[in-house]
Amino acid sequence: MSELLEQEYTIPIDEFNAAISDGMFVRVRNMLDGMAANDIAMLLHASTPKTRAIVWQLIDSSIQGEVLEDLSEEVRNSILRTMTPESVAEAAVNLDDDDFSEVLRSMPDKVYRKVLKSMDKQDQARAERVMSYEEDTAAALMNTDTITVRPDVTVDVILRYLRLKESLPEATDYLYVVDKQDHFIGEVSLAALVTSSPTKLISEVMETDFEVIPASMHESEVASLFERYDWLTAPVIDEEGVLLGRITIDDVVDIIREDAEHSMMSMAGLDDEADTFAPVIDSTRKRSLWLGVNLFTALLAAFVSSLFESTLDELAFLAVLNTIVPSMGGVAGSQTLTLVIRGMAVGHVNEANSRWLLGKELAIGFLNGLIWAVLIAGVVALWKQDLMLGGVLAFAMLMNLISAGLAGVLIPLMLKRMNIDPALAGSVILTTVTDIVGIFAFLGTATWLLL
Amino acid sequence: MSELLEQEYTIPIDEFNAAISDGMFVRVRNMLDGMAANDIAMLLHASTPKTRAIVWQLIDSSIQGEVLEDLSEEVRNSILRTMTPESVAEAAVNLDDDDFSEVLRSMPDKVYRKVLKSMDKQDQARAERVMSYEEDTAAALMNTDTITVRPDVTVDVILRYLRLKESLPEATDYLYVVDKQDHFIGEVSLAALVTSSPTKLISEVMETDFEVIPASMHESEVASLFERYDWLTAPVIDEEGVLLGRITIDDVVDIIREDAEHSMMSMAGLDDEADTFAPVIDSTRKRSLWLGVNLFTALLAAFVSSLFESTLDELAFLAVLNTIVPSMGGVAGSQTLTLVIRGMAVGHVNEANSRWLLGKELAIGFLNGLIWAVLIAGVVALWKQDLMLGGVLAFAMLMNLISAGLAGVLIPLMLKRMNIDPALAGSVILTTVTDIVGIFAFLGTATWLLL
Repeated sequence: MSELLEQEYTIPIDEFNAAISDGMFVRVRNMLDGMAANDIAMLLHASTPKTRAIVWQLIDSSIQGEVLEDLSEEVRNSILRTMTPESVAEAAVNLDDDDFSEVLRSMPDKVYRKVLKSMDKQDQARAERVMSYEEDTAAALMNTDTITVRPDVTVDVILRYLRLKESLPEATDYLYVVDKQDHFIGEVSLAALVTSSPTKLISEVMETDFEVIPASMHESEVASLFERYDWLTAPVIDEEGVLLGRITIDDVVDIIREDAEHSMMSMAGLDDEADTFAPVIDSTRKRSLWLGVNLFTALLAAFVSSLFESTLDELAFLAVLNTIVPSMGGVAGSQTLTLVIRGMAVGHVNEANSRWLLGKELAIGFLNGLIWAVLIAGVVALWKQDLMLGGVLAFAMLMNLISAGLAGVLIPLMLKRMNIDPALAGSVILTTVTDIVGIFAFLGTATWLLL
Repeated sequence: MSELLEQEYTIPIDEFNAAISDGMFVRVRNMLDGMAANDIAMLLHASTPKTRAIVWQLIDSSIQGEVLEDLSEEVRNSILRTMTPESVAEAAVNLDDDDFSEVLRSMPDKVYRKVLKSMDKQDQARAERVMSYEEDTAAALMNTDTITVRPDVTVDVILRYLRLKESLPEATDYLYVVDKQDHFIGEVSLAALVTSSPTKLISEVMETDFEVIPASMHESEVASLFERYDWLTAPVIDEEGVLLGRITIDDVVDIIREDAEHSMMSMAGLDDEADTFAPVIDSTRKRSLWLGVNLFTALLAAFVSSLFESTLDELAFLAVLNTIVPSMGGVAGSQTLTLVIRGMAVGHVNEANSRWLLGKELAIGFLNGLIWAVLIAGVVALWKQDLMLGGVLAFAMLMNLISAGLAGVLIPLMLKRMNIDPALAGSVILTTVTDIVGIFAFLGTATWLLL
């Protein structure tokens, strides 16, 4: 049985590509018809632009909206560009509020206006409502498909009311209790509903030590609350405490992943949603900026070396060793930097404990510096039969690993205080520091002691 | 109102540290008493070892278990080491199965046996059961607190049965329908239960197109299924289709974050759960290995340079420029590497599309190579009034950025095929390649053309 399952869950990407390159589109369509929206999204993410266009054509338009919502922003836009405003509108209006707004927000204004025009009055109103929420806030994440009840009715009445509804919105685990002005005053879990006696009043079975999310809260904070308190859903309220809607964990999970991936992608100068299969030109443009910045820092390092050109002229072998210390500093520094950036992202690093952290990283830099200074000194002493040279390299190594620890802690802290994303700018600045310190320490002492 | 909330949700870490350093332990204890286990865990993660020990002493023992479960492995172990087997046992037995086994697994065998001894027979049996599941599998993630019902009873009977129970396990959204041999045959959502007529049979209202998780499935796959299908909970079955338990999303969210963070941490040679505030010695030991590997590769690069010592001897300025090309190659390569590793982690990159990806990255390498080759040639031509030198540097730049694209795609693919974690080994190998190619391309052509 388990084998059967494993199969069912893995997407036959290779089969798809085979079928598509053989032009067996009927077969592809049949395969697609059996698939969940998430799986189709997965398939599109794993496809080359050409395949993507073909697959998209073959997807049943009834689930195109759902698929759109499951795509990363970059992939989604690449597909929206190929659709008519009418078909975009048609696909979008079937989505939940949060997904609806996400799709609408990801369009250029011109497209958005066209799409809006091709909707009926009611959908236009809804579109304008969801777009009125500020992006990346709890409000933009929420759905309005809440079930609200009054405190002064019995469980039995509610149960009969629900039976008339015949079905509940997806992932409904709580009914929300509101007063006549829609102020949120409590919640009743379905579990409580089915376990308490039908004659009881809602006010007797409802939980009043509830947790609510203000509409203005940033989505990252919402995500960390869901993570910390193991929520499945949570109600969203406005400043007056009026119930606006609810956020479900499935939307939060996406944010948790994005936030977690953000640091890694940024540290390489990529944006979180970077599409692995984006067209060459797009990717080239996006990445060249980062390379340009790095070229500038590399030239800076080269300039520092050039200050010691006469030294290098006399002792060519220094040039051979000149890359070792900077590279070690870069690695040690990026270890510290990564740890601090991660610590900041999950909220472990703050002003209060940063001094201790600085002390720790300096100590580690010193100890690791010692270890590898001694080792490199030995290697060079043997290689070139020159103890002095080894000593100079060892000293530079020690200096650079200590400053790497220092830079690895201070740079992200300073950047954060300046409201610059440490993950994005941190690594460039760090390597610049470790390069320059490394070269100065090595060539500087060499000039002083060896000439 | 929203202001109130914001406050309630943020942990006053600074206050804590102040109170602790002032020795106001009663105050600290009062603050801790009002806090959720997750918040205390957060506080411990953000504390220095000394503060941690103090805070832990002040935590009410009744929630120590819950806190332990919310800690990262490294932090948890540092605390377990300070506890007596008896208190560990006392804290652990109150946990859900999955948390119970996680805590037990994280202890050294010797400690585990001691802890086991200090439990009563029943808990010992439970411990042995949960430990019998293979680590990192669905079975190790699941709880056994499922509510099972038979297909041949009416909704009304079940509702009365639930009322007798008076409460349901946390995050119960489905009742599971099993036959006499406990084979999983369907599920009934609480929503269905409250919306369908009491006279109906469970067999009429249960869903039979259910999805189940085999006990042997790896936790990462479980996580990606929860993500793809927006599950809140999912039943776990054995090979015979017998219901073993259920997995809830709150445990899956942790795995999603860990998996997402894994790549970033590994790329810097840190392990995912690395404790930001671990003692200096531990961190030094853990990181020195990585530095050692890098020193070796740096020496390798130095050795390559040394092959051109005579050239460097004649043209000292080459030494000044020698760092530029390798550094650019390193950056370009790590962009590709990061993208591919991320793509592999989320399942977008596979054998089928890797050839296309290779072509794309080569093209990007070529284009970016051209851009920056031209620019650097200009800079150097102006700096040194030497067109030839600029040309040599430009050629080396182009060569190295192309090979960086090549290496960025091929290295992770090969490592994965060899079952080596690309995130861990990838960046070292990549920089070695880009260093060596860069130096050869630059100094090699220089030797050939400029002497």
